[in-house]
Amino acid sequence: MSEMKIALMNEFSQAGKNPVILEQLNSVASEQGHHVFNVGMDGDNDHRLTYIHLGIMAGLLLNAKAVDFVISGCGTGQGALISLNAHPGVVCGYCIDPSDAYLFAQINNGNALALPFAKGFGWGAELNCRYIFEKAFSGERGQGYPPERKESQVQNAGILDQVKSAMCKDYLEGLKALDQELVKTAVSGERFQACFFEHSQNTALTEYVRGVLDA
Amino acid sequence: MSEMKIALMNEFSQAGKNPVILEQLNSVASEQGHHVFNVGMDGDNDHRLTYIHLGIMAGLLLNAKAVDFVISGCGTGQGALISLNAHPGVVCGYCIDPSDAYLFAQINNGNALALPFAKGFGWGAELNCRYIFEKAFSGERGQGYPPERKESQVQNAGILDQVKSAMCKDYLEGLKALDQELVKTAVSGERFQACFFEHSQNTALTEYVRGVLDA
Amino acid sequence: MSEMKIALMNEFSQAGKNPVILEQLNSVASEQGHHVFNVGMDGDNDHRLTYIHLGIMAGLLLNAKAVDFVISGCGTGQGALISLNAHPGVVCGYCIDPSDAYLFAQINNGNALALPFAKGFGWGAELNCRYIFEKAFSGERGQGYPPERKESQVQNAGILDQVKSAMCKDYLEGLKALDQELVKTAVSGERFQACFFEHSQNTALTEYVRGVLDA
Amino acid sequence: MSEMKIALMNEFSQAGKNPVILEQLNSVASEQGHHVFNVGMDGDNDHRLTYIHLGIMAGLLLNAKAVDFVISGCGTGQGALISLNAHPGVVCGYCIDPSDAYLFAQINNGNALALPFAKGFGWGAELNCRYIFEKAFSGERGQGYPPERKESQVQNAGILDQVKSAMCKDYLEGLKALDQELVKTAVSGERFQACFFEHSQNTALTEYVRGVLDA
Repeated sequence: MSEMKIALMNEFSQAGKNPVILEQLNSVASEQGHHVFNVGMDGDNDHRLTYIHLGIMAGLLLNAKAVDFVISGCGTGQGALISLNAHPGVVCGYCIDPSDAYLFAQINNGNALALPFAKGFGWGAELNCRYIFEKAFSGERGQGYPPERKESQVQNAGILDQVKSAMCKDYLEGLKALDQELVKTAVSGERFQACFFEHSQNTALTEYVRGVLDA
Repeated sequence: MSEMKIALMNEFSQAGKNPVILEQLNSVASEQGHHVFNVGMDGDNDHRLTYIHLGIMAGLLLNAKAVDFVISGCGTGQGALISLNAHPGVVCGYCIDPSDAYLFAQINNGNALALPFAKGFGWGAELNCRYIFEKAFSGERGQGYPPERKESQVQNAGILDQVKSAMCKDYLEGLKALDQELVKTAVSGERFQACFFEHSQNTALTEYVRGVLDA
Repeated sequence: MSEMKIALMNEFSQAGKNPVILEQLNSVASEQGHHVFNVGMDGDNDHRLTYIHLGIMAGLLLNAKAVDFVISGCGTGQGALISLNAHPGVVCGYCIDPSDAYLFAQINNGNALALPFAKGFGWGAELNCRYIFEKAFSGERGQGYPPERKESQVQNAGILDQVKSAMCKDYLEGLKALDQELVKTAVSGERFQACFFEHSQNTALTEYVRGVLDA
Repeated sequence: MSEMKIALMNEFSQAGKNPVILEQLNSVASEQGHHVFNVGMDGDNDHRLTYIHLGIMAGLLLNAKAVDFVISGCGTGQGALISLNAHPGVVCGYCIDPSDAYLFAQINNGNALALPFAKGFGWGAELNCRYIFEKAFSGERGQGYPPERKESQVQNAGILDQVKSAMCKDYLEGLKALDQELVKTAVSGERFQACFFEHSQNTALTEYVRGVLDA
């Protein structure tokens, strides 16, 4: 698989776990030739992110093609899961074990995962994180599982993208319909901005974010 | 908790498991005073539903207030999960154990669950289904967990609803932007229609579905 | 099911979790009419118990019929599991979800469970504990699952007891072959002694334990 | 880690899954330089093995040093787990995910695992098997987790071995106290015999097994 840009984002309730998760993600990414951006809270932030903000951040990064994949989560992971999936261009799975990660990559070929960083996250959970990351990012994605079901799985993933597009407004229009204070908080982190502004491939989104920050 | 109307919906790949899941859901629902509608495939259907259709069905039933809650799923559950969450008015969690169900009810207070009906669904899985249903539908929902965090959890759930509304088109407009053949297949089941037409509280949606069927 | 006497025992590494586990066990036991004895560490002990001691304690309590069932565990639960199963008259299963507890009760009909109290024991784990206890102690045990397989399941459980007896020394002889310092530490807790001496139905074991304490 | 000889053993209820489990085990073992012996049922056997027989087989293979490690299991895995642990010289953990396998190798450093081959063993379970095997057999065992706890973990594992020795009869004496028909069935498979007789390093055990077969 070619190099991926992967964003990790933690919200306030599990911000204290960011260093251990980041360590595992960095370790796997460096083995596999990917690049990690730690764009959420790291326990030392001056702005408070909730799973709502994570969804906005993931939407911006993925739609601007600033990153290829997002690892998110919250206490149970459900808030992050639903929040990310609320945005067009974001297809976020839920993952508690390594085979979830592999099957999601092969069958659904989405671009985000939500993990539970409190529920079930006991002693030694860093091992499970590592094993999940190992299977999430290795090998070619979207090959189906088992391979003979690839055609119908790829077809359904494509239809799902169409459904999301049909149900959602134009993305920029949707962003402007949000409470702009939510967006401002979502994009206020230095590490987020460094990742987004350096790697965004979408001028309209870049300008929108600059406008929000200048407002 | 007052009586709930609960829809169960299975797609083609796990249609053969519908009877065993329905049995557990009916058993728990009758103990708790809820009513179940089996609106998807039951292994004997003449139309083929995928997780794409389940999302459309869930959106219609929930937005029309024909049912209060939807139990869905597919092989890994991820397709159903993302498909349901693509629709406004649907807040779908992922659930593999009873405490997932309880925490989702208390913290996220959503209106749908996606379960993996193939992955991890081995021998004795009917027990886990039962225990999940026991915890999903008993007690008052939305009380927070732990209770002292209720206020912020309820607040975030409310903001999430706003975000979904902001990002989505008006629901009926979104439905019309879909490939109408998808909608037609989604609403073509007799059991779905019986549930929807008898219980829909939204005239515009009822008329829309009638129109799709008559087209 | 008639009233059971249930011992809970925690070792040093997870002693701090004893109160929350005990609370859930007491709550379920009082609903179901069982009696709980908290015989291990509670975070305030002056003697340090490891999973080795838990095995000795479980062996004594179960062989003396002082209790009917033992809930044990350690960080991953594996040490407690193997330690308890090293003793004749102890048949200890491993349990991470409620259906494990139910199936073990119906199929294996053992008298002890080992739980992981650190691995996987994250936020909200008290819920999973409660649900496990609910299914471990309700209903008649040893009925097989599914019921039509009861005969062969009961037969194998009986043969397993014979195998354990064949491989083990006479229990008292085995106890005396242990490092007696291990036994002394295992039986040195006040709450253990209160349970054991009040409820032991085996005079030889009672006298042996008194002897160890007096040595 | 140096090359290990690994025995896989399935009983009657899950014999049909032997090929898929063996395939994964062989695949991982060949990558890691281990050797696999498939010594139980493969769905085509003329003798019926239960989890009771698996325990006897594991005891013989491990005590004779014919193999270094045993992968066993049954429907829930609990029968195999308890049956294997009934034998001296066998330290069998329970394993449902890859981190279980790793932690057991590092902390408990046992020589057998029991897996549930029916419960939780749904679609795609071969992936979980593979990932478990990857972590069970790679790297040096018994290094503790985290490493700074190695000393006390190794010490407890050593004491556990002593406890098992103290509680058990001499192994050969224990074997002779078993119903010899159980032993005969346990050792009657051609593939078991090929592994045992070629690799046993214990003349007394080899002679005992020959005697049972000749009786």
